[in-house]
Amino acid sequence: MTAPHAGSSASTAHVPPDPDYAARVRASFDRQKAMHLIGARMTGVSPGACTIELASRDDLTQQHGYIHAGIVGMIVDSAGGYAGFTLFPADASVLTVEYKLNLIAPAAGERLVAEASVVKPGRTLVITRGEVYAERAGARTLCAIMQQTLIVMAGKPDS
Amino acid sequence: MTAPHAGSSASTAHVPPDPDYAARVRASFDRQKAMHLIGARMTGVSPGACTIELASRDDLTQQHGYIHAGIVGMIVDSAGGYAGFTLFPADASVLTVEYKLNLIAPAAGERLVAEASVVKPGRTLVITRGEVYAERAGARTLCAIMQQTLIVMAGKPDS
Amino acid sequence: MTAPHAGSSASTAHVPPDPDYAARVRASFDRQKAMHLIGARMTGVSPGACTIELASRDDLTQQHGYIHAGIVGMIVDSAGGYAGFTLFPADASVLTVEYKLNLIAPAAGERLVAEASVVKPGRTLVITRGEVYAERAGARTLCAIMQQTLIVMAGKPDS
Amino acid sequence: MTAPHAGSSASTAHVPPDPDYAARVRASFDRQKAMHLIGARMTGVSPGACTIELASRDDLTQQHGYIHAGIVGMIVDSAGGYAGFTLFPADASVLTVEYKLNLIAPAAGERLVAEASVVKPGRTLVITRGEVYAERAGARTLCAIMQQTLIVMAGKPDS
Repeated sequence: MTAPHAGSSASTAHVPPDPDYAARVRASFDRQKAMHLIGARMTGVSPGACTIELASRDDLTQQHGYIHAGIVGMIVDSAGGYAGFTLFPADASVLTVEYKLNLIAPAAGERLVAEASVVKPGRTLVITRGEVYAERAGARTLCAIMQQTLIVMAGKPDS
Repeated sequence: MTAPHAGSSASTAHVPPDPDYAARVRASFDRQKAMHLIGARMTGVSPGACTIELASRDDLTQQHGYIHAGIVGMIVDSAGGYAGFTLFPADASVLTVEYKLNLIAPAAGERLVAEASVVKPGRTLVITRGEVYAERAGARTLCAIMQQTLIVMAGKPDS
Repeated sequence: MTAPHAGSSASTAHVPPDPDYAARVRASFDRQKAMHLIGARMTGVSPGACTIELASRDDLTQQHGYIHAGIVGMIVDSAGGYAGFTLFPADASVLTVEYKLNLIAPAAGERLVAEASVVKPGRTLVITRGEVYAERAGARTLCAIMQQTLIVMAGKPDS
Repeated sequence: MTAPHAGSSASTAHVPPDPDYAARVRASFDRQKAMHLIGARMTGVSPGACTIELASRDDLTQQHGYIHAGIVGMIVDSAGGYAGFTLFPADASVLTVEYKLNLIAPAAGERLVAEASVVKPGRTLVITRGEVYAERAGARTLCAIMQQTLIVMAGKPDS
């Protein structure tokens, strides 16, 4: 399956107002204890985009042995939130207003990769899209797609 | 704004099981009286993709003079439904299970263009994404993005 | 089917900051030309809630003769928007940020009734839920459910 | 805030085809290792409805110290899935097709309670709604609402 909407072609013109955006994003991610619990790692940060990866573990599964859909949602919601956060001013924090997730294949493999990017940056609301891929034996399968709304909490630094 | 997720880069590998898919899709669209009412036209059909356009009209507006968000939803839901329908067998019809629409800029301009494509074709469910652009004086503004689930009604031809 | 989540039990404690909220809501609805086009009528307005009705018409149908899903979306999106608008200050206007619609039965009957109410009022964002019922021969069938996010455009009166 | 759409009024007429539905649901939940990881417990199962509770823990938090939105999504997605599963035949399993989650207040408190119920049972697709409440010092705050689509995997028993 070659899906034109899945897979970020990556050329963005976004210019972060905070030049230290990457350090700020990584520091915030590091404070998310729930990400430590599941073993998620942030492996990519660029203006308007973020990648989070997760190694498969037995304690992350649902009843059929796949990664739990809720875990899939966790990493792509976070990837979307931090994609948006790259474009926030230094003194703002980010909250997810809502997200919608379609699960389109079992999350089976050695690793999940969640990629998200900003579709529309705004002063108050930021809209993102994301995808989750399952990697197995070198092959990638698209297993979920997401659409998300974030809100910029101005004047409330993240830490 | 250059959004990596918005705008279908269009290279799909989808192969419609019905070689007459385009005629079947156009005939179905022509039976949608609601599309005639609002003046929507199908301007593109290819495997796994569909484009629907709408000329602005005063009687399609909401209270601020923009095209009504519900009208925006109508054309992108239809574009998604017919993007999926291109990949259906000849004896099946299509129903929208659900869609989620983010409205990200006012639908203002001479014309709206809704583009949708299939992210994941399946035997029972088909997942699509879509975008709506407003065209004004030659410029395009992304005004809405959609994520949608369709169901294949096998053995129930559309007409 | 008796669905606990469908059908508003209606007892709200919402207190509109604008005592003339009902007149303001009805005036705004009357300016929505798209609602006139499809023949939608606002038949109920109360604090945090709104009802919009639509008589079936041949020119509102999709290819199988049911009311077009996009039309279903139009009236429930509007019902949600005006449910929220009842709780806005007099000098604010309303925009839909996003909505998600599940279509669960064909919209067949003499009349559609869209009911929506506010789940969470906020200063910036307002969250609503809505349902659409099809009425035929005195019986009601739930045909769609919606979940929606609105934004309060403060200092931008609706007219 | 009294929200008519939040909080299941609970009187359903759903009749599970499998009289042993409760044991089947609880056994499936027990096989979800991800639920063990976060400490979630299933505290209610009835025809078409399910309740899942989660005690707050430091390792479930996001960067501001609240329960991570993804964890909120995990428990309400599972509550919805098992609400639907109560109505499945004994030889079927359940998959989430998609869900949409609005986060409306910080998930702060001693405990989260996710309640979900079936809005529309179907042979292939089942639609649910859910809510998550945060409990603190005896008071309940609505912190998230969900709308979800499930698919019945007929002839594929859960275990």
